[in-house]
Amino acid sequence: MLANVRAKRPLVHCITNYVTVNDCANAVLASGASPIMADDSAEVDEITTLCAALCVNIGTLCERSIRSMIVSAETARRLAHPSVLDPVGAGASKLRTDTARRLFEHGFTVVRGNLSELRALADIPAETRGVDAGADGSITDETRDAAADFVAKLASRGGCVAAATSVIDVVSDGSRTAFIRNGDAMMGSMTGAGCCLSALCAAFTGANPDDPFGATTAAICAMGLCGELARARMTERCGNASFRTYLIDALYNLTPSQLEEGAKYELR
Amino acid sequence: MLANVRAKRPLVHCITNYVTVNDCANAVLASGASPIMADDSAEVDEITTLCAALCVNIGTLCERSIRSMIVSAETARRLAHPSVLDPVGAGASKLRTDTARRLFEHGFTVVRGNLSELRALADIPAETRGVDAGADGSITDETRDAAADFVAKLASRGGCVAAATSVIDVVSDGSRTAFIRNGDAMMGSMTGAGCCLSALCAAFTGANPDDPFGATTAAICAMGLCGELARARMTERCGNASFRTYLIDALYNLTPSQLEEGAKYELR
Amino acid sequence: MLANVRAKRPLVHCITNYVTVNDCANAVLASGASPIMADDSAEVDEITTLCAALCVNIGTLCERSIRSMIVSAETARRLAHPSVLDPVGAGASKLRTDTARRLFEHGFTVVRGNLSELRALADIPAETRGVDAGADGSITDETRDAAADFVAKLASRGGCVAAATSVIDVVSDGSRTAFIRNGDAMMGSMTGAGCCLSALCAAFTGANPDDPFGATTAAICAMGLCGELARARMTERCGNASFRTYLIDALYNLTPSQLEEGAKYELR
Repeated sequence: MLANVRAKRPLVHCITNYVTVNDCANAVLASGASPIMADDSAEVDEITTLCAALCVNIGTLCERSIRSMIVSAETARRLAHPSVLDPVGAGASKLRTDTARRLFEHGFTVVRGNLSELRALADIPAETRGVDAGADGSITDETRDAAADFVAKLASRGGCVAAATSVIDVVSDGSRTAFIRNGDAMMGSMTGAGCCLSALCAAFTGANPDDPFGATTAAICAMGLCGELARARMTERCGNASFRTYLIDALYNLTPSQLEEGAKYELR
Repeated sequence: MLANVRAKRPLVHCITNYVTVNDCANAVLASGASPIMADDSAEVDEITTLCAALCVNIGTLCERSIRSMIVSAETARRLAHPSVLDPVGAGASKLRTDTARRLFEHGFTVVRGNLSELRALADIPAETRGVDAGADGSITDETRDAAADFVAKLASRGGCVAAATSVIDVVSDGSRTAFIRNGDAMMGSMTGAGCCLSALCAAFTGANPDDPFGATTAAICAMGLCGELARARMTERCGNASFRTYLIDALYNLTPSQLEEGAKYELR
Repeated sequence: MLANVRAKRPLVHCITNYVTVNDCANAVLASGASPIMADDSAEVDEITTLCAALCVNIGTLCERSIRSMIVSAETARRLAHPSVLDPVGAGASKLRTDTARRLFEHGFTVVRGNLSELRALADIPAETRGVDAGADGSITDETRDAAADFVAKLASRGGCVAAATSVIDVVSDGSRTAFIRNGDAMMGSMTGAGCCLSALCAAFTGANPDDPFGATTAAICAMGLCGELARARMTERCGNASFRTYLIDALYNLTPSQLEEGAKYELR
């Protein structure tokens, strides 16, 4: 999967937030792909057409960018370009929830977020509410099966790959499910680890359009493994800013064989 | 003060500029708080309501974001949530000066800027103009008393804590005044040290809502001390980009006892 | 040229994209100049007037910012302030091509981009199409003379200095042409090296308004040399994120004599 990203160098169109956009661009470059950031409704149809994949992130959505997100989502779907939706903050405001749901209806290839963001995307029956049992809604050994049920249902509902990232990450296409145990707690202490991961999912699915489930799983393993490598590089005075640099550096230096060896996932 | 930030992990709503927004987010995270960036007028009321504190920074203001700033300022005031105004560039254009004054009228808990930005907020009688005596308007031993008079008057006028940061920082709530001598000249060679400080003031007042004067003083000491620690970490080939990383790293690793010991302030 | 930037500390007004804006600000500060980012049409006339130079970068253009770019371009021209246009992505969408051409008509002092972006600015006769002979449109020993012809024509057409950056960089004012061989391939693995260079061209022309050809050539040599210095600082685990930090650090520490010695250019 990673070898394909490095070989094909897919162009990735990102409509994303202005908080972590620089990290997203450097993460995409580090993976071997090329980012194009463009969000004006007058050009996004052309840019999405030009690119191999699309990443839509609603982190700092506004009326203007929402229009562009819709246009690009339609274009990507029409052209069967892989597309990733990151519903940042869905559930935190009506605007975010409504926009995320509206985008979700447009049919993305991959939807990635934390559990509460994904839950805001769809009304899921009460019996799966057990996934929220943990005080902080995180996915652990106790909650992973309930989480997997929910993620699989969401994937079926959206006709997509759904990925909930947490202590354990869960990826499902409705039938297959993967649990991933890569990652490091420091990733929650920097802004943008999730946004970069979504952009990376677009790079990986863009280079591996025939297997979005495998590509998403590989991207999540890669990002988690890079978190581990970044943590291993930290010294006494390092904090979240050094970690951020090391995370992207690790992605830049990651080899397919290193990913093969370091990926910790199991399929259900 | 810092221990409360780390323990309570307050949510901080930032409406800020797109130049230094990533640093602001990572600085807030480094302090132990959590940032939410959102600037669309359709959601800012909800986001401000959800958060423990608000930071409004007019660094790259536009018509759209100004509307959101006003809405959030009103919400924060209505709910008595601590709020911080950073009038970046007030005095440099009519739009900035007018917007800063308009926001100031809405009653923020803390106003932080350099002296010329704070002066642009209010018509202050001629006798205090002496604060500008220094060629560059900086606050030194010679000008600190005149600066303190001005800052105290501004605080009284706004019913707030006012903080002018410079070589010597001056904080006042109209009656009490603190002079702070932490900091390093390198902080002026990177973009965003001031913006991060304002976001930090929001994190500190959000976690210590009963003492905005103390919380603001602590935040300014913390940021200045981190500037000293970042400077101490620099080696021969380091420049302003490494300094930026080290500054946020230092904040991440700062302990309450380290702040207690390293803070250089006096009360008047 | 660099000594003048450090001595005069020109204010540089940047209307630029939100992807690399932080790097641009830190690069301008590293050079000794001061950046002001402002893009609301209600204030850009004042800000451009206040500044010594203007940099317009269309990386994430939108209807709103395009209006501001036009206003600032007119103001800079009226006041004879040096101005730099970076037509990011011209050719990739109609909006970008049209906007770049429209801005180009307003008469910038310097236009800097890669060859395909510059080609999108003007209809240049077929005989110079040979510059695209290379599979990737890069400028090498084989294509440099054809590229120089094109860049010189574009400079004459625009009454400006034109600079095409690639493996070999080409700068021309229509009569004189410089070839520059500084730089490192890592600069293509980070986002923003080009944007920072354009902002740097504004800093250099702002401090050396009587010689925009020399100032642009010096800025390109400086950035390329810093790329070499950044590369030399990399160790095993460093990637594009560390390179970015080292690039700006190198600029911060660059001395006029170091630039004099390290600049690799020839005039034609």
